[in-house]
Amino acid sequence: MMRLQVPGYELLSQADSLKYSFSGTGVNVSSALSRFGHEGYLISRLPSNPLGDAAESYLRKLGISQSLLSRGGEHLGMYFLENGFGARPSRVTYTNRQASSFNTAPEGTYDFDQIAKSIDMIHFCGITLAMNDNVRQHMKSLARAVKANGGTVVFDCNYRPAHWRDGGYAKAKPHYEEMLELADIVMMNEKDAILTLGMPTDKCEREEQLMDLIPDVARKYRISVIAGTHRFINGDNTHSLRGFIYKDQVFTFSNLLTFSVYDRIGAGDAYTSSIIHGEIEQFSPQQTVDFAAAASILAHTIVGDTPMSSVGEIFRAMTERVSDVER
Amino acid sequence: MMRLQVPGYELLSQADSLKYSFSGTGVNVSSALSRFGHEGYLISRLPSNPLGDAAESYLRKLGISQSLLSRGGEHLGMYFLENGFGARPSRVTYTNRQASSFNTAPEGTYDFDQIAKSIDMIHFCGITLAMNDNVRQHMKSLARAVKANGGTVVFDCNYRPAHWRDGGYAKAKPHYEEMLELADIVMMNEKDAILTLGMPTDKCEREEQLMDLIPDVARKYRISVIAGTHRFINGDNTHSLRGFIYKDQVFTFSNLLTFSVYDRIGAGDAYTSSIIHGEIEQFSPQQTVDFAAAASILAHTIVGDTPMSSVGEIFRAMTERVSDVER
Amino acid sequence: MMRLQVPGYELLSQADSLKYSFSGTGVNVSSALSRFGHEGYLISRLPSNPLGDAAESYLRKLGISQSLLSRGGEHLGMYFLENGFGARPSRVTYTNRQASSFNTAPEGTYDFDQIAKSIDMIHFCGITLAMNDNVRQHMKSLARAVKANGGTVVFDCNYRPAHWRDGGYAKAKPHYEEMLELADIVMMNEKDAILTLGMPTDKCEREEQLMDLIPDVARKYRISVIAGTHRFINGDNTHSLRGFIYKDQVFTFSNLLTFSVYDRIGAGDAYTSSIIHGEIEQFSPQQTVDFAAAASILAHTIVGDTPMSSVGEIFRAMTERVSDVER
Amino acid sequence: MMRLQVPGYELLSQADSLKYSFSGTGVNVSSALSRFGHEGYLISRLPSNPLGDAAESYLRKLGISQSLLSRGGEHLGMYFLENGFGARPSRVTYTNRQASSFNTAPEGTYDFDQIAKSIDMIHFCGITLAMNDNVRQHMKSLARAVKANGGTVVFDCNYRPAHWRDGGYAKAKPHYEEMLELADIVMMNEKDAILTLGMPTDKCEREEQLMDLIPDVARKYRISVIAGTHRFINGDNTHSLRGFIYKDQVFTFSNLLTFSVYDRIGAGDAYTSSIIHGEIEQFSPQQTVDFAAAASILAHTIVGDTPMSSVGEIFRAMTERVSDVER
Amino acid sequence: MMRLQVPGYELLSQADSLKYSFSGTGVNVSSALSRFGHEGYLISRLPSNPLGDAAESYLRKLGISQSLLSRGGEHLGMYFLENGFGARPSRVTYTNRQASSFNTAPEGTYDFDQIAKSIDMIHFCGITLAMNDNVRQHMKSLARAVKANGGTVVFDCNYRPAHWRDGGYAKAKPHYEEMLELADIVMMNEKDAILTLGMPTDKCEREEQLMDLIPDVARKYRISVIAGTHRFINGDNTHSLRGFIYKDQVFTFSNLLTFSVYDRIGAGDAYTSSIIHGEIEQFSPQQTVDFAAAASILAHTIVGDTPMSSVGEIFRAMTERVSDVER
Amino acid sequence: MMRLQVPGYELLSQADSLKYSFSGTGVNVSSALSRFGHEGYLISRLPSNPLGDAAESYLRKLGISQSLLSRGGEHLGMYFLENGFGARPSRVTYTNRQASSFNTAPEGTYDFDQIAKSIDMIHFCGITLAMNDNVRQHMKSLARAVKANGGTVVFDCNYRPAHWRDGGYAKAKPHYEEMLELADIVMMNEKDAILTLGMPTDKCEREEQLMDLIPDVARKYRISVIAGTHRFINGDNTHSLRGFIYKDQVFTFSNLLTFSVYDRIGAGDAYTSSIIHGEIEQFSPQQTVDFAAAASILAHTIVGDTPMSSVGEIFRAMTERVSDVER
Repeated sequence: MMRLQVPGYELLSQADSLKYSFSGTGVNVSSALSRFGHEGYLISRLPSNPLGDAAESYLRKLGISQSLLSRGGEHLGMYFLENGFGARPSRVTYTNRQASSFNTAPEGTYDFDQIAKSIDMIHFCGITLAMNDNVRQHMKSLARAVKANGGTVVFDCNYRPAHWRDGGYAKAKPHYEEMLELADIVMMNEKDAILTLGMPTDKCEREEQLMDLIPDVARKYRISVIAGTHRFINGDNTHSLRGFIYKDQVFTFSNLLTFSVYDRIGAGDAYTSSIIHGEIEQFSPQQTVDFAAAASILAHTIVGDTPMSSVGEIFRAMTERVSDVER
Repeated sequence: MMRLQVPGYELLSQADSLKYSFSGTGVNVSSALSRFGHEGYLISRLPSNPLGDAAESYLRKLGISQSLLSRGGEHLGMYFLENGFGARPSRVTYTNRQASSFNTAPEGTYDFDQIAKSIDMIHFCGITLAMNDNVRQHMKSLARAVKANGGTVVFDCNYRPAHWRDGGYAKAKPHYEEMLELADIVMMNEKDAILTLGMPTDKCEREEQLMDLIPDVARKYRISVIAGTHRFINGDNTHSLRGFIYKDQVFTFSNLLTFSVYDRIGAGDAYTSSIIHGEIEQFSPQQTVDFAAAASILAHTIVGDTPMSSVGEIFRAMTERVSDVER
Repeated sequence: MMRLQVPGYELLSQADSLKYSFSGTGVNVSSALSRFGHEGYLISRLPSNPLGDAAESYLRKLGISQSLLSRGGEHLGMYFLENGFGARPSRVTYTNRQASSFNTAPEGTYDFDQIAKSIDMIHFCGITLAMNDNVRQHMKSLARAVKANGGTVVFDCNYRPAHWRDGGYAKAKPHYEEMLELADIVMMNEKDAILTLGMPTDKCEREEQLMDLIPDVARKYRISVIAGTHRFINGDNTHSLRGFIYKDQVFTFSNLLTFSVYDRIGAGDAYTSSIIHGEIEQFSPQQTVDFAAAASILAHTIVGDTPMSSVGEIFRAMTERVSDVER
Repeated sequence: MMRLQVPGYELLSQADSLKYSFSGTGVNVSSALSRFGHEGYLISRLPSNPLGDAAESYLRKLGISQSLLSRGGEHLGMYFLENGFGARPSRVTYTNRQASSFNTAPEGTYDFDQIAKSIDMIHFCGITLAMNDNVRQHMKSLARAVKANGGTVVFDCNYRPAHWRDGGYAKAKPHYEEMLELADIVMMNEKDAILTLGMPTDKCEREEQLMDLIPDVARKYRISVIAGTHRFINGDNTHSLRGFIYKDQVFTFSNLLTFSVYDRIGAGDAYTSSIIHGEIEQFSPQQTVDFAAAASILAHTIVGDTPMSSVGEIFRAMTERVSDVER
Repeated sequence: MMRLQVPGYELLSQADSLKYSFSGTGVNVSSALSRFGHEGYLISRLPSNPLGDAAESYLRKLGISQSLLSRGGEHLGMYFLENGFGARPSRVTYTNRQASSFNTAPEGTYDFDQIAKSIDMIHFCGITLAMNDNVRQHMKSLARAVKANGGTVVFDCNYRPAHWRDGGYAKAKPHYEEMLELADIVMMNEKDAILTLGMPTDKCEREEQLMDLIPDVARKYRISVIAGTHRFINGDNTHSLRGFIYKDQVFTFSNLLTFSVYDRIGAGDAYTSSIIHGEIEQFSPQQTVDFAAAASILAHTIVGDTPMSSVGEIFRAMTERVSDVER
Repeated sequence: MMRLQVPGYELLSQADSLKYSFSGTGVNVSSALSRFGHEGYLISRLPSNPLGDAAESYLRKLGISQSLLSRGGEHLGMYFLENGFGARPSRVTYTNRQASSFNTAPEGTYDFDQIAKSIDMIHFCGITLAMNDNVRQHMKSLARAVKANGGTVVFDCNYRPAHWRDGGYAKAKPHYEEMLELADIVMMNEKDAILTLGMPTDKCEREEQLMDLIPDVARKYRISVIAGTHRFINGDNTHSLRGFIYKDQVFTFSNLLTFSVYDRIGAGDAYTSSIIHGEIEQFSPQQTVDFAAAASILAHTIVGDTPMSSVGEIFRAMTERVSDVER
């Protein structure tokens, strides 16, 4: 997607300029994994026009290999971002989404078997699942092909009410279940279980609900790893966040961390990509969740959606207190 | 439409920021006429979101009354503009056009009879005619209502090949003919007659073709005033332009003027609005065409699509040589 | 007034660019009320030059009707703003104030009876009262005309020591008393009573002083509604604020709210316009004061002097905790 | 003065930011002479506020000694500049001029005898002469003191119609005559002789008028050196300029030079300061006028009012054709 | 190298911001060839710090494969660019060059045999030859390895007096001769033959000198293709340029083209990369030289050192007159 | 040095522009003392190129007399600054340091005796001591000359591990000891005593270590005044700081102050210059340390390295609570 952000804290009706970049969950996760030393690809379709050229250059700059990108169609999904401040929340206005080259990619755009052979692991996002039947078909075919080929499937639930619209949870449920069946690693928390999967709980506290429901989800859909976060938004431009991972029937939590927020969008993708990195590198669950929480905190201090921190910087943030200027 | 322009002379794949404004032929003509002392309205539909809010504020700033604007739908037509320089032409990339609130306005969005009663004159543009059947239906109904109510109908041919696509001239012809039948004042030149209306001529020079064909067009469709320009693009960031008006069976021409170009887009709308102003104010044809040519030249020196010159400034540009700093 | 703000946190002697906008208490209140669904006018005089043109467009953009604006004179009041940060306060440098088109408007510029007939309510500000005898004469004549015509008079005390200079309170008192006699709704707190009106109190705490003095003010000048705030400035770019309203002999208070501050100027006008809105819409005193406090907090997060929040956004801020990105 | 310039080619009613700098004829001439290796002072008064601080730092940056600057008063003269392009002239809007610290400096602000002793040469400008009686009194007293002390007096006629307003030439004449009597070096051309001094000529061409009138002026007011330029403004962002110097009863001319213009304001001061430099350094008249013409042309390519070229750069521009990138 | 450019037309002593990018002859040629559909590599060394990270991302964005880049050392060569305008030439200030990671790369940094095997063609630049003995050693070893492996060697003479300093031509000659012996395709013109190689000619006109000397050069050093340009700089921000190619004992010339210049730096590399492309694609000499001249002209209209035009855009510029906005 | 700062919070690999300014410990201290009413000089060497011109203008702007500056060499030390945010620390990348005009100034660049006669006090910084033997020689010769001439020597330990590299403390110790022998006023804290001077202590808390070691240092090297700070970095963009001064065998401390940080670099120089000012003005130790702590806090709120607060502003910050907008 193209992100068009009003600089500073003006509204769209006050400003006259925008900063633009290209992002999206896939971009963020793939770029972060490249920065961690893996080979990151994006499977998508970009328009055959100057916007597509700009997006392609930008993805290369982020370290993403362009070899699985195709070009065609005329549009790019876009969103306009007005930065919030303190008591005033940030505001996102989507445009052009259904008409995007990605969402209108015809049958045969991607060679799923070929792709499945060239990668070890694949990441899908619930936002994409909300797009349209065509896209959902692509996702599921590809997930099956990767699975069949012995690859690992990651699924990030990422339910967005605005995309599914009225009665969305009911519409979404069968698609989510299908993806959960295929997935090895899942990003979610108790809200996904309650709202999307419709699972009941008699607990009231978020943490209790989590510990009540996530083991059931893992069991029911045969998922190896479920991870996610609890986030609390404070009035003074700080957030608090605690990460968890559920693996081998054990919950592991990070500390509850409170931190200043500069750019919140995409910070969840920093968490996701770090969980994936921890799994690939066979970190202990504690190390994985601490690494992911630190990566996510750093991502909140980075301009743009896409995480920019190296493994070294994340480890430094895990182990040290906030430091003075690095010279 | 929302204009998203790369500042300076970078390409979209080089830059990271955009200047935005809101324009379109209707906006440009209506705003120019407001600046000339008339009451200018825009009949359109803007999305019910922060982009629509921004557009509405911007139109107010330009002096356009918002009383005939409605709100609804989710999208705004957009175009990205990369400025050319010298031998490198400017480049426009459209996006989101068919999905715009305007192009998806349902039956009943506008009350044509009510509108027809509240205005004296209405301006239509051939670009709008290229949109879709629904929009064309709106245009023609409104033109008929205004005509029935004794108002004046202006039609600017403005044929854009990219919008009509393959076989466009044939597709466009019946719609253009219908609008020409309804119009009192028409903006066009010999190319519209030859290409869109398919009229034959055995002349080779542009000016001869013009003088051969335009009287036929005026006669055939019973049009009172036909006006337009011939434009020549030079390699050194200058253009040359001569305006004409055909009225009462007489052609009147402006001088051929050569001038430096800063922002070419919308300069045609400055010409159109000035022809309209000349007709309303009952200028002589020579005064009208000279006023319109001067207005158009000034519009090439103005940032953005929308003309910003006052009547006084245009008269100064008509009568004086280029002057030093005005203090 | 024209606001010329150094962007970011540089001083005038460090920077080389300024952001400009047009504001002032009248602009802020009128624009906020337009946004709340009322018809907002500004009664003022702008210079007949490009600065006046820019100001007029800007006011239209803010939704203010230009029908009561006149043009004449050569100057606009201006102020330069250097943003403070943490321990370093913001700094305002006024220029050109006495020479402004508004402050030099001759007798007969405004037709008070005509104006009084076309409006239901009028807002005056103590800053204007500090300008000069001519302006004070205009204010009082207009207030009397509106009152005579059955309209409501709002007066915001807004005493600024820099404008009245040495011995200011004594100079100001008779003018303030005259305005208070004419006013139905007054914005003030105990400091105005003590310093400007010279009223004694034996209380020490601000809140006790307020509750001791405001009822006397209301009684003495026959004022229906007195409202205002107590503000506390913290060292970490946050402020704390509690609003009050005194009506029908009862004090109603908002909670003491602590919030991050981005742009403090004009936040008082957000409070004032919201009190006015609450009175027009016949909110309960509690609803009015909560609405006004929330509006003021949001105004601290908005770039520029002029409030930009809609009724919906203010209600959301009243009832919900700080929320995540709105998508 | 403070120059507040709309960046790029937008109008004040389109833009939202300004670039600012501090200039004025005195600043430009003094700074240029500092750059040429002389000691440059400015005799002026700046306000005691952050604007005065910013101006003082800026003058230091330009190489002007602050030892003859005083501080007091509250205002600075300002002008807003909207850049023209091609057929659209640049536009200057003055503000705050009469109220400036300089124009309101009381008797006794400057110690004329002290100043006269510390300098060799002094430059006055006709713009200052237009301000008010107080300022004119300062100018004449200082000119007399410098003259009495054996210093050289330079006077630049620089008649600005907007400052003298209606009947300005008649009002200005006695003051100009007084300054011409005191001056050793005068910047002017035939227009000053005809319009301000009311001298008759029966010639029609500018150059003939110049050669007819300037010798009379030199004789009548006993002026050693008279210098100036003829400027022609072309439609394509270029100007043409020829410089002259009249000394020892001989006219010497530069070539007529045509050049691209980036920032026209202050280019006359580059010419003046270069004539002064030529006189101090005892260049031949031909060298002086060629140096001044080249300096003026370079000043048209420099951002801001104040010339920035070194002696070396000006000599290079005099002797060489336009060169490629200097590496 | 890192290019640090003052935006607009200010000098370093006036501005306070810089635009930065990463370029150099190798970057420009490699990136242009990537854009033309070849696989482009850069053989260089970047520092192991955030500047190196930024450079590496930037090169990826330009489409250059990073697989032959190494990291090490602490510095990057930089140059500061102040844009000229009209009569004022652009100015380049180099810094940090000898200390750069590239110029201090130790023995063994590059595996020449390995590189030679992985590429078909290699481009060297005379600027690099001026650096130091170590770098010269690297260049020659690599050229020999490529040649030995059957690859094509391109050498661009690009003599820069500032790098070789006093007596530079004599110092440079043996190194240039060594490179010419190894080269298959050489970029040069008659000046290189006269000044660097010290070849005599009795012709006076540039074109005659060229036709006199270049065949001797080709014969003496057994060079298949010699190409280059003649450039003329006009006073109005335009340049004129004619390209030539000498191949199979025949000279072929492009037309003399005159065009507006926005950014002159790197335009020579657009010419070079287009000659290479023509040779690879086996264009006729006329097509090659016309393609290269058009590519170079477009590169003068592009921001930054690096050409950004596609093959399609260059062909369009070769065959069409300057066109209106592309929509 | 030239500071090249990425604006906002982007990284070098994300942004494309830089803000630049010129600073360094000597610049900061000298400029602050000028602002406090003293005459401030800088003893340094700047390159003879446009970067040197820009630096020289900038220093003049800061109020530093250029009379002890010399010009020569080709380079300027530079550093790139990426702003940290919250949990992400700021990052400094040095470049070009050893090659700078200052670090390569040859014997005889400075006339130490002449300099010593023209000044009352001199400030040296430990960063300079880390440069090279040549520079160290200059420093010590000058310190001795000033001392011999009765002047006061200030030495700021400012040990930077990155400059001394491996085994740095041992390498640094003899040079530090030599400077301490010569110094009257020293800026340091217990860490310098422990790490650089290798002094043992059996205390664990920083404050105890300080009180244990500093008196020994003062005694051993016969230093009149030792001052410094303890700084604590919090996670929410605030720091806490306590200043101390040791004089006449007595420790005096400021309060521990917690404050928001905008730009941390150079805040130590604000502390140093304020200690110097207190000593010159014979403030009491309490007043000196409070003044210095307040100055340092304000410097954290100022853009750029160089303190910009006046004596009046610092006193206001010492005595008042954070205030509202200053109008």
